[in-house]
Amino acid sequence: MSGYTWGEQPEDTRTIKLNTNENPYPPSSRVQDALRNLDSTSLRTYPQPTADQLRDAIAHHHGTRREQVVVTNGGDEALRLAFTTYVEPGKSFAMASPSYSLYPVLANIHDAPVVEVGLTPDWHLPRDFTDKVNAAGAQLTCVVNPHAPSGTLTSTEVLADIADNLTGLLLIDEAYADFIDPTLQYNSAELLKHHHNVLILRTFSKGYSLAGLRLGYLLGDQSLIDPIVAKTRDSYNINHISQILGLAAFKDQDYAQQTWHQVRQDRATLRADLAELGLESPVSDANFLLVQVPPDAHKNAAQLYEHLKTEGILVRYFSTPPLTDKLRITIGTHEQNQRLILALKQVLK
Amino acid sequence: MSGYTWGEQPEDTRTIKLNTNENPYPPSSRVQDALRNLDSTSLRTYPQPTADQLRDAIAHHHGTRREQVVVTNGGDEALRLAFTTYVEPGKSFAMASPSYSLYPVLANIHDAPVVEVGLTPDWHLPRDFTDKVNAAGAQLTCVVNPHAPSGTLTSTEVLADIADNLTGLLLIDEAYADFIDPTLQYNSAELLKHHHNVLILRTFSKGYSLAGLRLGYLLGDQSLIDPIVAKTRDSYNINHISQILGLAAFKDQDYAQQTWHQVRQDRATLRADLAELGLESPVSDANFLLVQVPPDAHKNAAQLYEHLKTEGILVRYFSTPPLTDKLRITIGTHEQNQRLILALKQVLK
Repeated sequence: MSGYTWGEQPEDTRTIKLNTNENPYPPSSRVQDALRNLDSTSLRTYPQPTADQLRDAIAHHHGTRREQVVVTNGGDEALRLAFTTYVEPGKSFAMASPSYSLYPVLANIHDAPVVEVGLTPDWHLPRDFTDKVNAAGAQLTCVVNPHAPSGTLTSTEVLADIADNLTGLLLIDEAYADFIDPTLQYNSAELLKHHHNVLILRTFSKGYSLAGLRLGYLLGDQSLIDPIVAKTRDSYNINHISQILGLAAFKDQDYAQQTWHQVRQDRATLRADLAELGLESPVSDANFLLVQVPPDAHKNAAQLYEHLKTEGILVRYFSTPPLTDKLRITIGTHEQNQRLILALKQVLK
Repeated sequence: MSGYTWGEQPEDTRTIKLNTNENPYPPSSRVQDALRNLDSTSLRTYPQPTADQLRDAIAHHHGTRREQVVVTNGGDEALRLAFTTYVEPGKSFAMASPSYSLYPVLANIHDAPVVEVGLTPDWHLPRDFTDKVNAAGAQLTCVVNPHAPSGTLTSTEVLADIADNLTGLLLIDEAYADFIDPTLQYNSAELLKHHHNVLILRTFSKGYSLAGLRLGYLLGDQSLIDPIVAKTRDSYNINHISQILGLAAFKDQDYAQQTWHQVRQDRATLRADLAELGLESPVSDANFLLVQVPPDAHKNAAQLYEHLKTEGILVRYFSTPPLTDKLRITIGTHEQNQRLILALKQVLK
């Protein structure tokens, strides 16, 4: 049994970090204002146990009720709680493969056999996904959407069809959903109205530039959320400061959406620029691209990763098939993306 | 199955909170300084995953190595991790009874049968404690020391004897250890040198006036700590701000110790004042007293609790035997304690 492997976090600030899917822009200025107004005396007492102000803001935003929201210490805690609450010991867990590497780690800790269903070559869920998951008796199925590490989006209709036919729970991990092209009108929260076996996971890490604060949440039917709020989560899982800063960031939707818009624009530019260098990637609705390193390139994916690292640019290389000939590149600022393209040009041409 | 019951947290600031064992003094001024110096841009990226600066400071303080420390999201996370990591499904958990009400809740969530060993009438562990725990095959035993809710201290020698003879793990929950009379020279960290089946839990909630921040830690043999750091804890369990503020508070030992000294002085005064009103309590090495309401008093414990509440003073009443005729009272500031005594005088005389 091995644990989760963290992305590299260099100490120096000159390194360009395109490896852990952080938002390249700082959090809303309201977060700094809220920090400045914090009185440390307020830390003397226990925090509000269920982060209700934040829950209310989240519920209002998604058109749900407070009782359909549980705030978590990052998306990681949300995933762990889904296992703890909804997978009985010895029962199995299902996921599409490849996918977020934390899923099998959590399943392993939880002694849940993992059912991995391979994606199609163009990164979509296969038609028999639900049948395979049901046949394995999975009590919980995680689908990350947009998909990581490809960025491919599964439509709400396909997800509804899966939820309709799944015998277990469907957790839609929307860690990157803030970066979906809005013209696609993706809105999985609609699913909650008619599907009582669906949990939706969101995080403040990417969309609100708050990876350092550890805030995420789950949306779902009250019957799914209640046991997490009342039982399986640590009683005071969200500290006082995170509740306040999270609320400040969440309420500044205008600013957050500006950063998402900018990331989408830069994603299109970067994708085109990379393709010009022979580094093709699927259309991505996330804040990263999964580029294919051609077999005839001067360097393979692992070598390119190492080379970029010596140039002070970190991207993500995965040493497990089918990802060994690909690199996952986070969308940075325009300037960071340009520096990446320049570095790649020099080594590939 | 029912969850943990939180202590009451009134919204108004005039209520005197002597119900949840918070430190009556604010955190070190260095916490406010650290808050003021925080740049919200630092929240954009993931935090240092293992809180190493804080781990190092804690290790140095206790004379252990970094690898013997894991920092947790409050003491609650430390307890949960002890279960997750060291109690196999279906195996049992042991505790003295009565004790911290979260223990059986966690055992319940973890499907671990609970072995409750009754304390002696003067709140000490019975001589056959270890035998009973071993006979039940408990994989984990929690002993809160100083004991809650009585405040009674078990000596390091007795704990060493238990650890020597226990077949499972001993977790010494030292949530209140900062308030132990220093002339007693209690130092359980010494146990770690020769006992590889001991975990010690500490928290910043009480001793460092940071209940709102959620910080705690476990000390133990590296063989016990490694799996928690690398596997069972959430990858980024301590957010960036908590790491910084926790370090600021921990480094100001002088200030923290001043608050402990003050609490000890006021504890002695309050205990004597309460005894004068007929409300006796055992000698306490924690920041609370467990007072016995005499059978012939004008009001019983539940009525006294309710009466004090109407006077704006919250204390803790437990509705389960053998605590139904007692009240747990947190040591407040000198002024708060005097207001409590005044309110009690009026109703009891």
